[in-house]
Amino acid sequence: MNIAFIGLGNMGGKMAQNLLKAGHTVYGFDLSPTAIQEFQTAGGVVSTNPQDAAKHADVVITMLPAAKHVKDVYLGDTGILAVLPEGGLCIDSSTIDPQTIKDIAEVGKSKNIQVCDAPVSGGTVGAQAGTLTFMVGTDEDTFNKAKNILSHMGKNIVHCGDVGAGQIAKICNNLILGISMVAVAEGMALGAKLGIDPEALAGVVNSSSGRCWSSDVCNPWPNISENAPASRGYQGGFATQLMLKDLGLAIEAAGQVKQPILLGGLVQQLYQQRCLQGHAQLDFSSIIQNYLPDEA
Amino acid sequence: MNIAFIGLGNMGGKMAQNLLKAGHTVYGFDLSPTAIQEFQTAGGVVSTNPQDAAKHADVVITMLPAAKHVKDVYLGDTGILAVLPEGGLCIDSSTIDPQTIKDIAEVGKSKNIQVCDAPVSGGTVGAQAGTLTFMVGTDEDTFNKAKNILSHMGKNIVHCGDVGAGQIAKICNNLILGISMVAVAEGMALGAKLGIDPEALAGVVNSSSGRCWSSDVCNPWPNISENAPASRGYQGGFATQLMLKDLGLAIEAAGQVKQPILLGGLVQQLYQQRCLQGHAQLDFSSIIQNYLPDEA
Amino acid sequence: MNIAFIGLGNMGGKMAQNLLKAGHTVYGFDLSPTAIQEFQTAGGVVSTNPQDAAKHADVVITMLPAAKHVKDVYLGDTGILAVLPEGGLCIDSSTIDPQTIKDIAEVGKSKNIQVCDAPVSGGTVGAQAGTLTFMVGTDEDTFNKAKNILSHMGKNIVHCGDVGAGQIAKICNNLILGISMVAVAEGMALGAKLGIDPEALAGVVNSSSGRCWSSDVCNPWPNISENAPASRGYQGGFATQLMLKDLGLAIEAAGQVKQPILLGGLVQQLYQQRCLQGHAQLDFSSIIQNYLPDEA
Amino acid sequence: MNIAFIGLGNMGGKMAQNLLKAGHTVYGFDLSPTAIQEFQTAGGVVSTNPQDAAKHADVVITMLPAAKHVKDVYLGDTGILAVLPEGGLCIDSSTIDPQTIKDIAEVGKSKNIQVCDAPVSGGTVGAQAGTLTFMVGTDEDTFNKAKNILSHMGKNIVHCGDVGAGQIAKICNNLILGISMVAVAEGMALGAKLGIDPEALAGVVNSSSGRCWSSDVCNPWPNISENAPASRGYQGGFATQLMLKDLGLAIEAAGQVKQPILLGGLVQQLYQQRCLQGHAQLDFSSIIQNYLPDEA
Repeated sequence: MNIAFIGLGNMGGKMAQNLLKAGHTVYGFDLSPTAIQEFQTAGGVVSTNPQDAAKHADVVITMLPAAKHVKDVYLGDTGILAVLPEGGLCIDSSTIDPQTIKDIAEVGKSKNIQVCDAPVSGGTVGAQAGTLTFMVGTDEDTFNKAKNILSHMGKNIVHCGDVGAGQIAKICNNLILGISMVAVAEGMALGAKLGIDPEALAGVVNSSSGRCWSSDVCNPWPNISENAPASRGYQGGFATQLMLKDLGLAIEAAGQVKQPILLGGLVQQLYQQRCLQGHAQLDFSSIIQNYLPDEA
Repeated sequence: MNIAFIGLGNMGGKMAQNLLKAGHTVYGFDLSPTAIQEFQTAGGVVSTNPQDAAKHADVVITMLPAAKHVKDVYLGDTGILAVLPEGGLCIDSSTIDPQTIKDIAEVGKSKNIQVCDAPVSGGTVGAQAGTLTFMVGTDEDTFNKAKNILSHMGKNIVHCGDVGAGQIAKICNNLILGISMVAVAEGMALGAKLGIDPEALAGVVNSSSGRCWSSDVCNPWPNISENAPASRGYQGGFATQLMLKDLGLAIEAAGQVKQPILLGGLVQQLYQQRCLQGHAQLDFSSIIQNYLPDEA
Repeated sequence: MNIAFIGLGNMGGKMAQNLLKAGHTVYGFDLSPTAIQEFQTAGGVVSTNPQDAAKHADVVITMLPAAKHVKDVYLGDTGILAVLPEGGLCIDSSTIDPQTIKDIAEVGKSKNIQVCDAPVSGGTVGAQAGTLTFMVGTDEDTFNKAKNILSHMGKNIVHCGDVGAGQIAKICNNLILGISMVAVAEGMALGAKLGIDPEALAGVVNSSSGRCWSSDVCNPWPNISENAPASRGYQGGFATQLMLKDLGLAIEAAGQVKQPILLGGLVQQLYQQRCLQGHAQLDFSSIIQNYLPDEA
Repeated sequence: MNIAFIGLGNMGGKMAQNLLKAGHTVYGFDLSPTAIQEFQTAGGVVSTNPQDAAKHADVVITMLPAAKHVKDVYLGDTGILAVLPEGGLCIDSSTIDPQTIKDIAEVGKSKNIQVCDAPVSGGTVGAQAGTLTFMVGTDEDTFNKAKNILSHMGKNIVHCGDVGAGQIAKICNNLILGISMVAVAEGMALGAKLGIDPEALAGVVNSSSGRCWSSDVCNPWPNISENAPASRGYQGGFATQLMLKDLGLAIEAAGQVKQPILLGGLVQQLYQQRCLQGHAQLDFSSIIQNYLPDEA
């Protein structure tokens, strides 16, 4: 199958390589010469712009930083939808607001092109290993078509609903995640200050009603969760500035439908405070440092 | 074994009955005639005051509403520690601040009486079924002695550390729980407003990093978690006013050691708002109603 | 002087009438036929689009709902900057983010057109009476030129700094306002619940360190501040949805420079909650109803 | 007049000296030898305990750290109410919860002793200069009697309502103050980060709807308010730990009547975070440092 891949960064580059390994022909585009170089070395065909990549393709996959890039790549005279043949399929794996992809899908529909959102979780590790989770928003038919391709890059392809539902699922999940991480940070720091052994406390919480991904898989207290960033100086993992971006999407989406998210509004600012303090690159679980005296 | 049981309410009454079923002699005291009546019917020996119960006992168990009751029952001229023989064991299963039980244990130590805290989780259902979790704070020796008795009333007896550690574990767990429930409420309500099917959203969250007890076992959106209070009009479960009380303990304990808990401070007030609005008796997951338009 | 006025809504319409009264010729444009009708009756010259108005003008004033409208009116082939002669002056009195007006001023500069931001406070009452406060961002020269015109519509023309500074001042003022109103609501509601007479409490606060515009001029408790919306059922005043919009601008601007605003992030959501509950049109001081039992 | 003064610390000591200057005989008690020494030097009569002081007195004034000290001094066999003659007057100027003083007044009433609360504002500077504000809770008669004495120590004696109303007024005022200071900190820090001159911003805010005591008299940005702690390294002023204490009283009082104070709950924790970071002694306006990058 001929696939166009737009956005060959940390995530996209690794995803494209898995498509190449699976035997597909991949036409790639990125603004970064380094990204292009790596892609070419891995066997990809370099394109000079998104339209150039798309005109060879049955399927287009995009993995871009923000909504404005996605709009630029798909819409307008120089956009993909202007050249992709009828019957084509576009999969946007960027994390953006749900409305943008709905708007693009509307344009696609008028040209008989299927568009779906498929944001991912799993990070660069999952992208490399081909074990990403894709949260897909589209109709049943398009989902089945997309699933065939996505399964070369991920192992968990979830149909969340109509176009936009993938983004909604990701935004809402990360909203819950961003809050519950602060919750665990507060609980662990309080317990330690009150004198309980953090490992004993985590043991109780993880077998009780406080249990969550942030307490068992990714506990912010060092050396509780074996493979957590907290156990390696908050390196790797999910950067605070990315959590800040995703919470920004949640707040923007909530604002569009006038839905209050009280804790969401507050914790976004807490992560922003961390960034102001110079910790934007550390894993977001490092927010526990704001609750420890050493971090004055 | 001769056991004194002080506080035969919704929880204590059922716990005492499990001790009676196990063949122990239980001397019980409560201020409520109804509670006394039920206890007597179940085979308990009624005492006229805490000292009266304690003087027959090897072990004393207390299950009381607040720290002041616990102090009254243990300390002073009319308190249990004034009459319990040397070598006795006191187990306080009330949920109170960690400092109070430490103070009482100090007095106990001077009289060669072992005191431990052992707050529970599992609610009245667990109390009746004998499946409570006990979070025990005391030394190794006392823990083993206490475990023998507690195992008649619960199936999960966790040693959390020294005296007070049981209370600390419970407080910190419920702090995390109280926050993560609001997190899930915000995420589910936002998702629904944005148009995703709540069941699909819960499916994604529960297999992803937003997963927590509040999303999988006790989801606040109706009919997601089969046995959750949300699926039966928020009846039963863990009353909002009890969550409010436990968060109050967290804030009090945090204040004693000057430990900040930002989200904790806010969510306690959110639950207090729910109580002001007349929903103190509903399960705490009903806080999602504050995020829904019907609940104006 | 020939003035183009774009945006003749509740605010702009009244402002334009004050320019007409002062003897200026005003070329006006608005999408609403009703607004146009009123403007024409008051002696204005109706234009068919912004460029049509601008080409007659020495000065352009815009009063529009959001940044996208401001961009549309000034920029691009159909924008004002494409037709306004060199040496012209543009005054944008809309409340928008600071960056947008900086971008427009940059374009203006390349065409030798002066652009300044001059958002207002004072509401429709001040617009009608010609007593608005203008917060102006621009250089000294342009400020003096703008002041001559603005003084027909307001009585307090403040030079806040370079382009964008007017917006910054307004955003930051309303951020403080939006929070302090909730602060007063919490204080008044708590005092009343504890049993103090609200009038006595307001008396103490207003002569002490809790004193603020929200406590003395616009107290949210009814019948404390004589002319406050609280004393007339929260009608008139500054609609909750407008406060929500301005806090949205604060959060957006804060996000652009990664500056945390913790209380800002939370109170925006509180006002959003009020809108969800159906109170978007009430004065923002009506947020006190969320702290009163009647408002369950 | 013979006056007993219990609690001769930083505040009480200076207040007692003003009574001495006015020609009253003052019987004083304090646990600190230094405080006693200063009091004696100023002409006071030293007593060996509160009862010893009270038995000489027509009027008792107490200025103590917390509710437990107030209870200890007034109630029980060794308390003042056990020895003060009928017709005596007790004025408690400590800042405590409203309920405690109501309870004490109840006991006083049964012995025909008038008890009122009269917490102060004005700090040690006001205590020394005799310019304190007293917020008095009691009936009309007792107020007039108390006013005569309080006017030697303060210049603004406000009758807030019945017993407890003084405490309620102080608590609610400081709740509003504690929040609005953070509001101003957020607004000033955001404005500065966005590029407006802080002095220009303060000028706009102070002549607009963001105006408050925290922006005009005590602006947290250095060198805006001439005599503010911010202009002298946050020394002097109102210590963060005292604001933390007063917010704790607000939260406790709110909890007793189940009244939500959302921002109150959050900002208390923010001040607690400042204390954890080692800034308990700085003026509470130093909370702005949490919004500045230098303070990482």
